[in-house]
Amino acid sequence: MAKERVCLIGSGNWGSAVGKIVGQNVLKFPALFEPEVRQWVFEEDYKGEKLTDVINREHENPKYLPGIKFPNNVKAVPDLIEACQGASVLVFVLPHQFVRGVCDKLSNKIPSNCKAISLIKGLEIKPDGVTLFSEEISRMLGINVAALSGANIANEVAEEKFCETTIGCRSPADGEMFFKLFNTEYFRVNVIRDYVGVELCGALKNIVAVGAGLSDGLGYGSNTKAAIVRLGLMEMRKFGQTFFGSVEDSTFFESCGVADLITTCSGGRNRKVAEAFAKTGKPIDELERDMLHGQKLQGTLTAMEVHQFLAPRNMTAEFPLFETVYRIIYEGAPVESIVRDICI
Amino acid sequence: MAKERVCLIGSGNWGSAVGKIVGQNVLKFPALFEPEVRQWVFEEDYKGEKLTDVINREHENPKYLPGIKFPNNVKAVPDLIEACQGASVLVFVLPHQFVRGVCDKLSNKIPSNCKAISLIKGLEIKPDGVTLFSEEISRMLGINVAALSGANIANEVAEEKFCETTIGCRSPADGEMFFKLFNTEYFRVNVIRDYVGVELCGALKNIVAVGAGLSDGLGYGSNTKAAIVRLGLMEMRKFGQTFFGSVEDSTFFESCGVADLITTCSGGRNRKVAEAFAKTGKPIDELERDMLHGQKLQGTLTAMEVHQFLAPRNMTAEFPLFETVYRIIYEGAPVESIVRDICI
Repeated sequence: MAKERVCLIGSGNWGSAVGKIVGQNVLKFPALFEPEVRQWVFEEDYKGEKLTDVINREHENPKYLPGIKFPNNVKAVPDLIEACQGASVLVFVLPHQFVRGVCDKLSNKIPSNCKAISLIKGLEIKPDGVTLFSEEISRMLGINVAALSGANIANEVAEEKFCETTIGCRSPADGEMFFKLFNTEYFRVNVIRDYVGVELCGALKNIVAVGAGLSDGLGYGSNTKAAIVRLGLMEMRKFGQTFFGSVEDSTFFESCGVADLITTCSGGRNRKVAEAFAKTGKPIDELERDMLHGQKLQGTLTAMEVHQFLAPRNMTAEFPLFETVYRIIYEGAPVESIVRDICI
Repeated sequence: MAKERVCLIGSGNWGSAVGKIVGQNVLKFPALFEPEVRQWVFEEDYKGEKLTDVINREHENPKYLPGIKFPNNVKAVPDLIEACQGASVLVFVLPHQFVRGVCDKLSNKIPSNCKAISLIKGLEIKPDGVTLFSEEISRMLGINVAALSGANIANEVAEEKFCETTIGCRSPADGEMFFKLFNTEYFRVNVIRDYVGVELCGALKNIVAVGAGLSDGLGYGSNTKAAIVRLGLMEMRKFGQTFFGSVEDSTFFESCGVADLITTCSGGRNRKVAEAFAKTGKPIDELERDMLHGQKLQGTLTAMEVHQFLAPRNMTAEFPLFETVYRIIYEGAPVESIVRDICI
């Protein structure tokens, strides 16, 4: 059997943390994987040098994950096509806005037996439907795509702090290969079949974190926050089961479900900006400018997209927490409705 | 149909918070409940007066829930038998060590159609078996007993901060009555049938909180803590399903499950003392003396009881988180094993 040749597509903070793991793991299974892992790096200038040159000399990405060494078998490649040449396993770990551009360039260049996994955060929710990035990649490249998500803050993973993650993969054989590619003593992988649930959790949790942050901003206690987190978990489940019949209850007990939700609602920017929203009364775009250098907050954006998706279906009342977050942030509803209006 | 006459057995911090709710709720359903709610109060001296006299004059329990007014229809009664006389609904809300003494006194004095609900925290775990207090009361008094548990810190409930709770009750008719007795706008009740799961969660969560506190004490991040909480939730479920076949997956999604676990692992004495254990290396009894005025910590005690229950069954390896907490606290295992040894 030919060995798997792995290519990482993306090299930001999370891509770099994952690159370290994948680089180490391919060496543990020499019968299964080729030792060289290529990583497509969007070329940038770094202190007068090319970033790829720095990475390949220092075995470190000083721009996005400073202080963490990669194994020497991870090779940064600035050309996407060259990086993916001959690869049989593609690991997508890049911001969602770049997915379609990358897939356009790779179109017709990837053999149909190539395996892929998406570590991309987020969903594309439009009034006419919800698109999972794993499915979009699958559609554009004509290959099977699994998904990985969990309570995984990149820097903590890079520092080898113990955590868990979830891989959703329909094929048991591919699932076993991905387990070997990602699992370590400190980064524990559970493989399940429900890739849809895995991806949904990673996006919808951010709405719940906004709700938790509003509660914190109002000075409510830990009972209240725990209730919001629980009700949010139930709406995530209901959303998945209403619009994707295949989503399973058990997925929400995995790292991608309850654990990631706990982390996101205790720390994280969504919680923090929402807390400031409740405390200061400033509009969300002003807070994004002040606190996030103008970047858009994921949770509020997802809340609006979910509202625009539910409204034409007359289903906003079925998801009172998601809807209440939307109404507080964008329609001037009183912040206190975060507890008054979230039970059916 | 005769109206229900409610008696509260217990008047501590939680009993007082619940007394306020029950007192208000019986007045909302005058066709269902008698307006007077009796509360058995263990008589004590309070600043030279009898505590029951103070409660009945001030409509407040200044010793255990100062600053919170009860409705006037809650009547403190120092004699247990008199308090329960004619009652058709008994609410047990007292420390577990008093349950058998109370039931001994009530034995043969309670009609068999009396309904009861246990708000008692904890379980009795001995090497030869696990006893739920609801079942112990049921056995001693010959009546059906439901259970209530959730993410409910008494003071937050008393201040009407929004939260949820779970009632486990086999009889749908009784469940509906208990819903009316406890549910308010700020204290949202879900009734389920799985009373065993409700009670188990309330006790086993404390072991998980010790694990979470050890992680905090070691300075591990939020990913690690979320992983410990999730693995703990899975062991709680496994314990229930292994030793009580009737426990349902869905119970762990209720307030008594995931929400109470989140609260307990983010605040709470179990987490806090365990954090100090990891930081200082002092033995647990010294920390109990210093931090809890000599009171026993629930989570460590439950971890030991669970170990003593599992060991003769050769099943400690099936519950690696519970067992690791026990070994760290009582057998000198390194604190770091809280992440090294908790996966099967």
